[in-house]
Amino acid sequence: MGIRICAPFVPSWYPSVTGIESNPRHDRQHCAKGGRKFHQYREYQSQSGNDTKGHMEWSKLGGTIGAVAITGYLVWKKSSSVAQLDAQKHHDIGNRKHEQALKHLPYFSRNEVAEHYDDSRRVWVSFRRGVYDVTEFSAVHPGGSRILMAAGGSLEPFWELYPVHQKSDVFHILEKYRIGNLNEDDVLETQESVDHFKGEPMRHPALIRRAEKPFNGETPPSLLIEKFHTPNDVFYVRNHLPVPQVDAKTYSLEIDGISLNEVSLSLQDIKKFPKVSISATIQCGGNRRTEMGKGKPVAGLGWTGGAIGNAKWTGARLVDVLRTAGFKPEAYKHPEKFHVKFDGLDTDQSGECYGASVPLSYLLDGNFDAILAYEMNDKPIPIDHGFPIRIVLPGIVGARSVKWLSRVSISDEESQSPWQQRDYKVFSPSVSLETVDFSAAPPIMETPVTSYICSHDDGDKVKKGPLKLQGYAFSGGGRRIIRVEISLDKGKSWNIAKISDTNDTNLENTRNWSWVLWEANINIQSSAEIWVKAVDSGYNQQPEDFKNIWNYRGLLATAYHKIYLDVLT
Amino acid sequence: MGIRICAPFVPSWYPSVTGIESNPRHDRQHCAKGGRKFHQYREYQSQSGNDTKGHMEWSKLGGTIGAVAITGYLVWKKSSSVAQLDAQKHHDIGNRKHEQALKHLPYFSRNEVAEHYDDSRRVWVSFRRGVYDVTEFSAVHPGGSRILMAAGGSLEPFWELYPVHQKSDVFHILEKYRIGNLNEDDVLETQESVDHFKGEPMRHPALIRRAEKPFNGETPPSLLIEKFHTPNDVFYVRNHLPVPQVDAKTYSLEIDGISLNEVSLSLQDIKKFPKVSISATIQCGGNRRTEMGKGKPVAGLGWTGGAIGNAKWTGARLVDVLRTAGFKPEAYKHPEKFHVKFDGLDTDQSGECYGASVPLSYLLDGNFDAILAYEMNDKPIPIDHGFPIRIVLPGIVGARSVKWLSRVSISDEESQSPWQQRDYKVFSPSVSLETVDFSAAPPIMETPVTSYICSHDDGDKVKKGPLKLQGYAFSGGGRRIIRVEISLDKGKSWNIAKISDTNDTNLENTRNWSWVLWEANINIQSSAEIWVKAVDSGYNQQPEDFKNIWNYRGLLATAYHKIYLDVLT
Repeated sequence: MGIRICAPFVPSWYPSVTGIESNPRHDRQHCAKGGRKFHQYREYQSQSGNDTKGHMEWSKLGGTIGAVAITGYLVWKKSSSVAQLDAQKHHDIGNRKHEQALKHLPYFSRNEVAEHYDDSRRVWVSFRRGVYDVTEFSAVHPGGSRILMAAGGSLEPFWELYPVHQKSDVFHILEKYRIGNLNEDDVLETQESVDHFKGEPMRHPALIRRAEKPFNGETPPSLLIEKFHTPNDVFYVRNHLPVPQVDAKTYSLEIDGISLNEVSLSLQDIKKFPKVSISATIQCGGNRRTEMGKGKPVAGLGWTGGAIGNAKWTGARLVDVLRTAGFKPEAYKHPEKFHVKFDGLDTDQSGECYGASVPLSYLLDGNFDAILAYEMNDKPIPIDHGFPIRIVLPGIVGARSVKWLSRVSISDEESQSPWQQRDYKVFSPSVSLETVDFSAAPPIMETPVTSYICSHDDGDKVKKGPLKLQGYAFSGGGRRIIRVEISLDKGKSWNIAKISDTNDTNLENTRNWSWVLWEANINIQSSAEIWVKAVDSGYNQQPEDFKNIWNYRGLLATAYHKIYLDVLT
Repeated sequence: MGIRICAPFVPSWYPSVTGIESNPRHDRQHCAKGGRKFHQYREYQSQSGNDTKGHMEWSKLGGTIGAVAITGYLVWKKSSSVAQLDAQKHHDIGNRKHEQALKHLPYFSRNEVAEHYDDSRRVWVSFRRGVYDVTEFSAVHPGGSRILMAAGGSLEPFWELYPVHQKSDVFHILEKYRIGNLNEDDVLETQESVDHFKGEPMRHPALIRRAEKPFNGETPPSLLIEKFHTPNDVFYVRNHLPVPQVDAKTYSLEIDGISLNEVSLSLQDIKKFPKVSISATIQCGGNRRTEMGKGKPVAGLGWTGGAIGNAKWTGARLVDVLRTAGFKPEAYKHPEKFHVKFDGLDTDQSGECYGASVPLSYLLDGNFDAILAYEMNDKPIPIDHGFPIRIVLPGIVGARSVKWLSRVSISDEESQSPWQQRDYKVFSPSVSLETVDFSAAPPIMETPVTSYICSHDDGDKVKKGPLKLQGYAFSGGGRRIIRVEISLDKGKSWNIAKISDTNDTNLENTRNWSWVLWEANINIQSSAEIWVKAVDSGYNQQPEDFKNIWNYRGLLATAYHKIYLDVLT
């Protein structure tokens, strides 16, 4: 189960430079057949009836093209409360010093930059007319040491893949590391833009778009309360990489790892296992981030309360499938030392895939309903949600429910993906990106209790008198919501909301993996701040506000939801 | 598995009154051989070397004597912040109106009172010279409908067993229900006091005594931080009934219930199962109650932060033992509908035992280390902690880890004990004893994350400069503590404390059932309020203060611990 070495990053259009090929930092984990799959087109239209426009053009880039798989964010700390990752705004007018040669700084050639490809020689990168020493920054880069794949070269191709970097605040940070100018002859003309995302599926216009490339969109909160199971087309989408396109006919899932036999299963093979349906909520770790960012800026997608949804998931039980590969719980004497790893078919250009893992102990819990889902709300799982197979890990943060699943393995180490190792961890309010020790916190698994008012927005004007409030409440770990409470007087008194029944006896849930929808009939006589809080069956309570759970990534923003309602007089 | 009917409550000294014998409310659950066991003296001295003084005199009372098993508390809401249940203070000088005939009220005979033995005739009780209509109160009595066992009669024998009732505030509540005076001829002379507690073991003087009968004592918090495993002699004791005395030679554990064979195991039988040791913290649901009571009074024992302890527990795995009775997880198609019930040998005079249950789903989780413990910290389990067998249910509130275990059964209903059905539930801050609907909240199982400063008390005077703070942090459900944070400036900034390593690889824990001990070296320059908070591996955070988690019983008082340190100048 060691790290397999893939081809190093050598863009095909880039002049060969000494040293790059042998840079040991370019090692990365193998993803099951990710490369191969990328060239396969899937028959999505015939499976789900969705319209798809165009095809991915990954093949143009060639198999040797790699890129940093950065986690989709950087630092936004000097800007607005929450970075709005709007890919349409690539070209901020301010802060474009990288387009200028700065007279007080020296000039370097592309070859001189290329000599600085590792720590021992300092790590330099170029970006347009600027040359930067990012040796120190690489230690705190959320995408990890893989920023070093650009070492000695230009950032441009990477930032083209990750337009998230192309904004004023990131440019500003980059300039802090400026050490010189690139010789004018070496400044590459902007490459003809390759759109790695042009084969993506259409999205429903109701989704509130938070980023285009990769696509991220949330459900309008007011829609969430309409139905216990969120319709597929408006279910929030949180993609970390371009959507892969998979041919259901040639799809295969690889299973391997410690005390397992290597097994390869087709979609038809997976459908032969007992068909199980559960109801489960999936929630992004960043849901409600904008609220946390109001007091002090945080970095990440500007989600309100719509990065969550509840669906009926149908497929094969993970443990049933693993048994085919010889899985026996008793084979792992110290289960706490093992992890179940999941790879997706969504990869960056280096072939590095999206990945996550959960402790093996989850599989030893007979109540844990992990499903290899091929249906979502009784329809083939849509492309954006992982067609043809998504692992659904109920009660656990959405980031671990890997879409477009290509491989399941049991390992003695966690997934080494940046989403497991760096992102989706919550640090102390006193920790910043500059001071973070990524090893100091575990990856998010089960998510804490949260609640949200969906029927009204902060600042809404309402009539004096009776008013129905509606929303959702959810807790991870299969803990059910036992109570939702509403206060109109900042906690002096609390009203109990009515909560929906989540016991769908037709489904095979062993725990309460679903949210509850709640409603409360209040009588509002004057403008007031409305608070909602929920209590779960472990009697966990939400924090009262965000101040003391603040973290620089704006994750697990689970304080009371508070909105101000303006009563019309 | 139905309710078995025991002899109704007919104190042997009480004149026979029409109706009492046939009162169907006197039904109660059978406890495995509780009656028989009570007459057996145990060989404790030879087992553990402790001194024991005297023997229980239950036999004097005879098999037909019953009593209400009230939950050991009532309402204290108009008194001090937390009721100090000091049995020495039975006879408050104020509020003793029950000793007086009130001229404006009518007189009733004992026979007239006796006619009011159920709802249809109103429920009357007498107490000394007072006659009371408790029909409405019985619906909210924490001890449940079993208060009706006193219906038509006198409260005196019950309140003798539960001295907790004999205090000013309870007298005050009682008087609210006064409807008349008892004829002077019918006022019973105070019975010769029978001390049901005279055979109890000696307790270490270091324990801070919170109640004598039944005995309740907490560990001084400053002792807790001395050792990862709390020594037996100073481990907090929370008893709900008189301590039973059990003969290890004749002890037997009964196993029965749905899809199980009836099995009876001796202590030696239990010791033949594989011997397993785990490290686990047990915490009272009322730990830290005094803090919650500071803002608004709560009812219950006045625990500070010492109703918690961590020990090495050794015994047989519950699932191993249940397999002897034919336990197979697959026998329960809807495991969420079943419960594992535990009965203790500690009973009230009616033979009703202490009892608790947990959902069967716990047994389906291969990570759940439930132990039939016969050793605590490598010594035979002390009498006060459940000799000879205590079920240790790690990660779950202490009230479910039944001591002096007599029976384990699998049932389609929860334990019907008041500790399961009424007590040890947490209601909304807006709910009082008067308005509570006991069915509206589930029994506490896993406890939320908490933390405590043990090295210093609120108000301590300290020298300016470096200062070492120490304490514990704990979360239920096997969630480990991932971070303990200290603030000297009310949350503006946080320091990370150093936490002890809980991974004792010699033990067989599959999860983190133990607390962590932490220390933080701070530098205090001026008087300040010090805050501590902990975060568990489910990223659950403590509430900032008690206001919005307040509940009338003062349970799960898990807000930040805040102490004021006065810097000497």
